[in-house]
Formats: sequence, C-alpha cells, structure tokens
Amino acid sequence: MSEPTLSDVSDWWATAVSRVEPDVIELRGRPVQELIGRTSFVGVVWLLLRGDLPSPGQERLLEAALVSSVDHGPHAPSIAVARMAVTCGIGLNSAMASAVNTLGDVHGGAGEQCMELLDDVLRRATDGADADHAAAAAVDEWRARSKYLPGFGHRFHRTDPRRDPLLDLVREAVDQGVVAGAHLRAAEAIERRLAAGRDRPIPINVDGCTAVVYAELGFAPPLARGLFVLGRSVGILAHAWEEANQGRRNKGPMPPAVRPTYLGPA
Amino acid sequence: MSEPTLSDVSDWWATAVSRVEPDVIELRGRPVQELIGRTSFVGVVWLLLRGDLPSPGQERLLEAALVSSVDHGPHAPSIAVARMAVTCGIGLNSAMASAVNTLGDVHGGAGEQCMELLDDVLRRATDGADADHAAAAAVDEWRARSKYLPGFGHRFHRTDPRRDPLLDLVREAVDQGVVAGAHLRAAEAIERRLAAGRDRPIPINVDGCTAVVYAELGFAPPLARGLFVLGRSVGILAHAWEEANQGRRNKGPMPPAVRPTYLGPA
Amino acid sequence: MSEPTLSDVSDWWATAVSRVEPDVIELRGRPVQELIGRTSFVGVVWLLLRGDLPSPGQERLLEAALVSSVDHGPHAPSIAVARMAVTCGIGLNSAMASAVNTLGDVHGGAGEQCMELLDDVLRRATDGADADHAAAAAVDEWRARSKYLPGFGHRFHRTDPRRDPLLDLVREAVDQGVVAGAHLRAAEAIERRLAAGRDRPIPINVDGCTAVVYAELGFAPPLARGLFVLGRSVGILAHAWEEANQGRRNKGPMPPAVRPTYLGPA
Amino acid sequence: MSEPTLSDVSDWWATAVSRVEPDVIELRGRPVQELIGRTSFVGVVWLLLRGDLPSPGQERLLEAALVSSVDHGPHAPSIAVARMAVTCGIGLNSAMASAVNTLGDVHGGAGEQCMELLDDVLRRATDGADADHAAAAAVDEWRARSKYLPGFGHRFHRTDPRRDPLLDLVREAVDQGVVAGAHLRAAEAIERRLAAGRDRPIPINVDGCTAVVYAELGFAPPLARGLFVLGRSVGILAHAWEEANQGRRNKGPMPPAVRPTYLGPA
Repeated sequence: MSEPTLSDVSDWWATAVSRVEPDVIELRGRPVQELIGRTSFVGVVWLLLRGDLPSPGQERLLEAALVSSVDHGPHAPSIAVARMAVTCGIGLNSAMASAVNTLGDVHGGAGEQCMELLDDVLRRATDGADADHAAAAAVDEWRARSKYLPGFGHRFHRTDPRRDPLLDLVREAVDQGVVAGAHLRAAEAIERRLAAGRDRPIPINVDGCTAVVYAELGFAPPLARGLFVLGRSVGILAHAWEEANQGRRNKGPMPPAVRPTYLGPA
Repeated sequence: MSEPTLSDVSDWWATAVSRVEPDVIELRGRPVQELIGRTSFVGVVWLLLRGDLPSPGQERLLEAALVSSVDHGPHAPSIAVARMAVTCGIGLNSAMASAVNTLGDVHGGAGEQCMELLDDVLRRATDGADADHAAAAAVDEWRARSKYLPGFGHRFHRTDPRRDPLLDLVREAVDQGVVAGAHLRAAEAIERRLAAGRDRPIPINVDGCTAVVYAELGFAPPLARGLFVLGRSVGILAHAWEEANQGRRNKGPMPPAVRPTYLGPA
Repeated sequence: MSEPTLSDVSDWWATAVSRVEPDVIELRGRPVQELIGRTSFVGVVWLLLRGDLPSPGQERLLEAALVSSVDHGPHAPSIAVARMAVTCGIGLNSAMASAVNTLGDVHGGAGEQCMELLDDVLRRATDGADADHAAAAAVDEWRARSKYLPGFGHRFHRTDPRRDPLLDLVREAVDQGVVAGAHLRAAEAIERRLAAGRDRPIPINVDGCTAVVYAELGFAPPLARGLFVLGRSVGILAHAWEEANQGRRNKGPMPPAVRPTYLGPA
Repeated sequence: MSEPTLSDVSDWWATAVSRVEPDVIELRGRPVQELIGRTSFVGVVWLLLRGDLPSPGQERLLEAALVSSVDHGPHAPSIAVARMAVTCGIGLNSAMASAVNTLGDVHGGAGEQCMELLDDVLRRATDGADADHAAAAAVDEWRARSKYLPGFGHRFHRTDPRRDPLLDLVREAVDQGVVAGAHLRAAEAIERRLAAGRDRPIPINVDGCTAVVYAELGFAPPLARGLFVLGRSVGILAHAWEEANQGRRNKGPMPPAVRPTYLGPA
C-alpha cells in the first residue's frame, strides 16, 4: 500500500447526500433552511434517496405506501420486540433499534423480493410472452425455489384491507401519467394466475402493493425494505411508548405464571 | 401466582394503538383503508402517538421538526455507523438498526433533556420568577450538574442553519393561536442568558429548536428522542444506500493504510 | 480548528488493546499465536479488559460468574427477543444483537448498580460505621430513591440457585487470599439487614452474587454489565439456534389465534 | 383457526435448552448449581449448543477457536462501531449490540461459508474424486459465483498469524483421535490448489481455520457465525470500555477538522 494522505481519508467518507460545513447544511445541494417549512417530510425522504424533489403525484404514492406500513399490532415480531425491549431499561432509540433489526428477509423483505418478481415478469414479457404467460412462468420458477411467493396472500387476512386503496391510487396515477403501470399490470397478472382454478384467491398483500408503488416510482428493490423500515418505525415508536407508560419491567412474551413447555432431558 | 388464563395472555399484550383482526386493521380506531391516500405520513405519526389527527398548523410544525433532523453527514456517529454496517453483509434494516441504536443520551437525547430544561424554566416562572430569572436559575442548576447545556451551542456551527426557520415557524404558530408559546419564550430567555456578557452567543441549536416544537405541541420529553429517530432514519437510510452502491466490503473508519496509534506495551 | 494531519487521524483511533500490522496481531502486547492453545478463553477476557493474565484463583471466580449468567429461559426478554428475531430472516449475529441490546439498566444493569451499592456500604464503613450500620444506611438511602434494590430478591426464585455456589467460591477465594472479601461482607450485611424482622428473607440474587465477584476482582461497575452480556450471549445463541431449527417464520409473542386485548376506541 | 388453549401458549415457547421454575434453573437437564465452579465457561458454551459436555480434547479446540477471534483492531467495522457507539450515551450492552450486528455475511460470515465449501469438497470426494480434484472442482464452482473464496487469503496479512497454531492444534487432535481430520484435509487441499502456479500462496485465514475447527467438532455451519460473535464480543467489549474511559462524546470516524469529500451538486 502506498503512503496514505489526508485526501484519502476525506475520500474514504465521500458522499453526495449532504454537505456539512460550519454554518452550512445542504441536503442533495439544497440548503436545509430552504427545506424546513416548505418541503414535506415525505418530499425530503424522496430528495435524500433520489437527489431531486418528487412531483405531487409521485409524493402522493410514496406517502400512501409509507402510511400503509406503519403497524400490524403486537403479533408482528417487530412490534412485540419494541414493547419488550423498552421495559428493559434502554432508551426509545435502542428499543426501536432492536425492533427494526428484525425487519429482515422474512419480516421486512417481501417487498424487495416482490419487486424482483415483478421485474422478472416484465423481463419475460419484453422477451415476447404475453402478460399472463410471463406471470405464470415467473410464479412457477419462484415456487420451484420457495414455497412463499413474496407479496401475495396473508396468514391473517383473506383480503388485506390495504390492498384496494393502494392499488386504486396506483391506477389513478397511471391514468394521470404519473407512472407507467407496467409493474401494476404484472402484479395483477400474478394475482389472476394465483386465483385460477381456486375457490379462494390469493390476493396481493401490503408487501405486494407497496412493491408495485415503489417499482412504479423507480426505486431499486432493496429500498422497498428501507422504506418499510421508515414506515414501520412509526408503529414501533407508538407501541414502545405505550408500553413504556404502562411501567412494566422486563416484560417477557407471556405472563410469568405461564410456563414454557420443557422439551429437554429430565 | 394464581392459575393463569388465556385472558391473562391477551391482556399481557393489550394495546390501544391498533386493532388487527382478519380483514381488519384499525389505527387508533380508524380503518387503515380510510387513512391511505387521505392522511399524510406525518399526520399518521401524530395519530399513532397521540390518538387523534393534528390540525394543519400542528402538522406543519411537526413536519418541519422532522425535516430538520434528517442528516448531519458522516461525522455524525449514526451516519458513519450506518455506512460501515451496510458494507458488512447485513440488510438495510440491520444497518439502520445499528445506527439508530447510537441515538442515545449524548447523540440523540439532547432534545429530551432540553424539554426538561424548558419545563424547569416554566415551573420556576409559575412560582413567580420572571422569565429571565427563571432561565438563569434553571441554567445555573443544570450547569452545576453537567457542563453540557442541552439544546444550546454547536461544535460545528456558530449559528445552526436550522435555528431561524424553525423558530420562525413556531412564532408564526403562536401568532395563529396554534401553540401557546411558553416554551418558545423559555428557550429565548435561556438564549439571552447565555449571550449575556459574551462576545459570541451560544444560540439554540437544532435539538433546542425541535425541543421547543415538541414541547409547544404537547409531546412528552422522551418522544423528542423517538421523533428524532424517525427523522434521522431518513438520512441513515440514504447514506447506507449510497454506501451500498459503492460496493466496498468491511469498510473501517479510515483507509486500510492508515494505522491506529498504538498505546500499549511493546 | 487548526489544519489536521494524518497523525491526528491515527491518534483518533489510538488504542492499547491490540496492535494489528501485516502478519502481526498482538493483544495487550502478547502475540496472538502465543495465546491460542495456551491461554483459556476466560483468561483472554481478563487479558483484554485488564491488560494482564489472571491468577488461577481469579480466573476461577470470573469463570463461575460467567457460567452463572448464561440463561434464564424464554421469560427473559433477551432470550425471547433472540428467538423471535431469528425467525424474521436475519443472521444469528443480528438476532443476538437485538437480544443483547435489551440488557439495559433494568434487565442487565442490576449488577452494575449493586456494585455501586456495595461501594457505598464500604465508603460508609471506612468513615467509621460498623458493617451493619453502613449496610442499613446504604439500603435506606437507595430505597428512598428507588423501590428496587439491585442484586437482592427475585421475582421467580425464593432463593436463587446460583447464590450458594457463587458465594461459596468467593468465601474460598477469601480464605486463599485471592480476594480481600470486603465486598462479600458488605453484601452479607445487606442480606442480614433485609432479613431483619421478616419471615421470608430477601437473599442475594445472581446479579448480587456476580456483583460481589466482579467487585472482589477489581472490575469497574460498568463491566458488570459488559461481562453479563458476554455470559448471556451464550444462552441467547443457544435459544436462537434452537428456534432457527424449528423453522417458524415471523414468530410473534403468542400463537396467532390468541388476540391481544384491544383498549382503544371502538 | 381453532380455539387456542393455554397449552398452546406454553408450547409456543417450548424449549430443550433450559428449565426455569421457582428455585430451579437447569441447563440441558443439569442444575446450574452443579455447573458453577465445576464446568468451564467454554464447556457451558458447548453444553448449551450441543446438549452434552465436551471431552477435554474437544473443549481445547473450541477454546482455541474462540480465543483466536476476539479482536482485530479498530479497522474492523465491529470494533470501530463499538467505540463510536459507546460515546453516544448508550450502555455497554447497546454499544456491543450495534457492533455484533455488523458481523454479517461479509464481516462474520466467512466461517459459515467456508464450512459449506469444505462440506462441498468432502461431498465430491465421497463421490469418488481424490481430495485435490474435489478441492479444485469446489473452488472453481465457488469462484464462478463469487470472487471471494471464504476462509482463504487476507487483505492485511500475507500469512494470518492465527493459522499455524490453530491448524497445529487440529492436527494434534487428529493424532489423538479427538476429531477425524477430513475437513482439515479438505482445507489443506484447497490451500494447495490456490498456491499452484503462484509465487505467493493464498493461505487459510482465521475464518478458514476456525471453520476447520468447528466442522471437525461437528457444529452446523451457521454456528460458525454464532461462535464468532461470542469470541469477537470480548474485543468489542474491551474496545468499547477503553473508549468509554477516554471520555469523548459523539465520536465520529475521523477528527472533526477532516472534511468528507463532497460529491454532490454545487
């Protein structure tokens, strides 16, 4: 290795996201004082991730996707972990950290995987297949690898109540020319495919709907997970705060009098 | 302990934040499908933490405080940790978790502490002291305990560029009757006190300004930290994502050729 | 700020813990290749924290304290969080992180607080009080501040099964001149004080016993928490691994059919 | 879903790792009071993960692997994160959590991947290939997927100083009949393959050596990561503690006067 210089150190931490100098904070080239009070929080989410500000139609979709992700009650591991963690004598920041950490491939990754699935459908369609054949082929290939099709079906809900309003917003945005609609059509084709020959369909769930939104808006698949973290952090905070106010200490997963079944040697 | 029942288990996880049943998701009593597309993300933050929806004036203040917190560049430990963590082969959710976890008493707690300081000034004023005497007494007592006065002064900025726009918004909200202004006046009194007899003032910083916002809006002090986590998560995500796209692996804090000074035995 | 140099960067990361150069790894001045196969893992824990190697008697005490901390079953939030987290599609490292993060002031901090309590007793005794009066005064002052006396009593156990073997080891170490015994006597004095006039005593619990061990060995109080993290990480790993092998996905705190009690608006 | 019962709740948390009842703590069927003072910490690590106690020869290997993993200085993201986190006003447990969280696929996963690579060599050898051909085929297939061969080569060290003592211990254990040696021979075959036709070999690194140890001892590959977390936690704690004693607040990755290079719009 050649002799390092101070420039190497500066370059090691190079960034285009923000510039912070004495008395200066710029976010993607915009002074923070011009954003405060003028740009919405969701607009700033877009700005930091994309480098420009969203159109009103784009912002509306992103906002709806974030709103739809905020909470799914204490059965969600992320919510339960936040509530337990905050009773252990750590700050809200740390309780939130233990919780968002659980939004991994299984709990928070379905949106990212669904975006890859939708991209796969579109790739096949570009190669000449019609939408339904492309969807069928993509689903079959996914299922050969995994029994979980990301973005479709729900263990709690027959029809996820967040499905219709989210898809309606995307359809409206397609009509208004805000987004192109290709990913929406791919998702609908998968939904049709999954319903074929079944009494009970397997509708798009919230992960699938937000995947459609993020894909239509041009976000890369890993950001479906990152944006889900932003949305779910709201519910995580609200639950942690409610629990903190109940004053319990070292909250376990069940009342102390309930004993875990013991499976080990006598 | 008496024999537990299933109701004890349900009660163990009791919550007023949300109700999730098959095909039903309600947030603070409102069906999620009525929120999606109609309520802003910041409005839902308020809803989950407070139980009702904010007025437009309240929402505007909360939004501005969140926007002002999103990023402070790679010198901030939270941002640096996110960038390093994401190069280690963990998902964006986990990189964000390692980062928000660092928003503790020192890095993310100044807002909470400043809210307590402002409350202390108001308590003294209620007891009959005028604002300036109350501020002086509160500052003196705090300084007897700690050399860091939360919410005032900044190691980088002489005047934090986020100060003026945030305080202007609060003043406007006071004029419009959105908030009462008592915490704003307490903060201004502290600022005057700190400037007295000095060439260079010690102005309110972003933690102090957002503390004023949150206090005026009636949030409890620990939520200053929780809301800071929500805001800073945006910058944390943007930096983690930028770093992920640079493709570095196991990014340390400096280029490999720079050696840490060794202080131990030969 | 004056112009920085590369030395400033090296100094920023100065450490006496280890020296890592090409083909060289030294821990506290000892080449790692001389430690591997010759020094015990617990010996290396001591080495890294203290700078030298423990005597056999010191190592025996540290080892016993670590062994006593490894697990307390799924009711412990740390264990439950690890099990839930690992089902969410994150690695064992991240499941362990979410879990050890919960070992805060309430869940993992009692040992640290108990060490401070023992120090307080000794300070009072140095000032001339006999052990029992010093213990009484220290307990009374603590209880004026908090209803939880750290290191004494247990919500599950009448007598913590880890108490006797740990205290016996400390007594043996006192007899052998390994440790001085002052902190042991302080703990015993507190135990006597708490038992006075009660049918059922409030014996030292595992946090108290390990606090005695760490204090007798000369560790600073915050390391009681750090060492507890090392010990408990073993149980955290074992439970996360067992859960991972059961194959559940998104494990919540109770079976899906059990509904959390809803406390909010209709 | 049928009506749940309390047994379902108990079964939800079923475990064979430990049994905790009032006045009873059993680890894998052994009363904790019989372990304290009699069983080593490393023996208890084995007990909790495997269900029985190790032979002295097995324990010796596990101990050596844990010792070899404890620290690699501040260039390691895990160590740097721990040091930065602890200056932000969070406890040692949380600083350790942010740090171990970074031991992901890239930073802490090489051991796990190397175990899979060694298993692949052995599978091919079982199918009739000699060791060198099996190694060549396994390496070629791995390299077709990734340019990083897990467990071989090091960006800092030409020869990792932990290699020789670890491999010597495994060879000794093979001679003594403690382990079979098949994974050792697979690793050596890979090393020979990588050296063929090169001036400078690509020796087994610490991840590869510990992978050999864990594979010879019969641990499943994911536990290579879990055990690495246990070992590295020691260095993480020592560095966090050293940093905490230096008293810095909000330590960034470089001195404040060094500015990150700005890559964004003017």
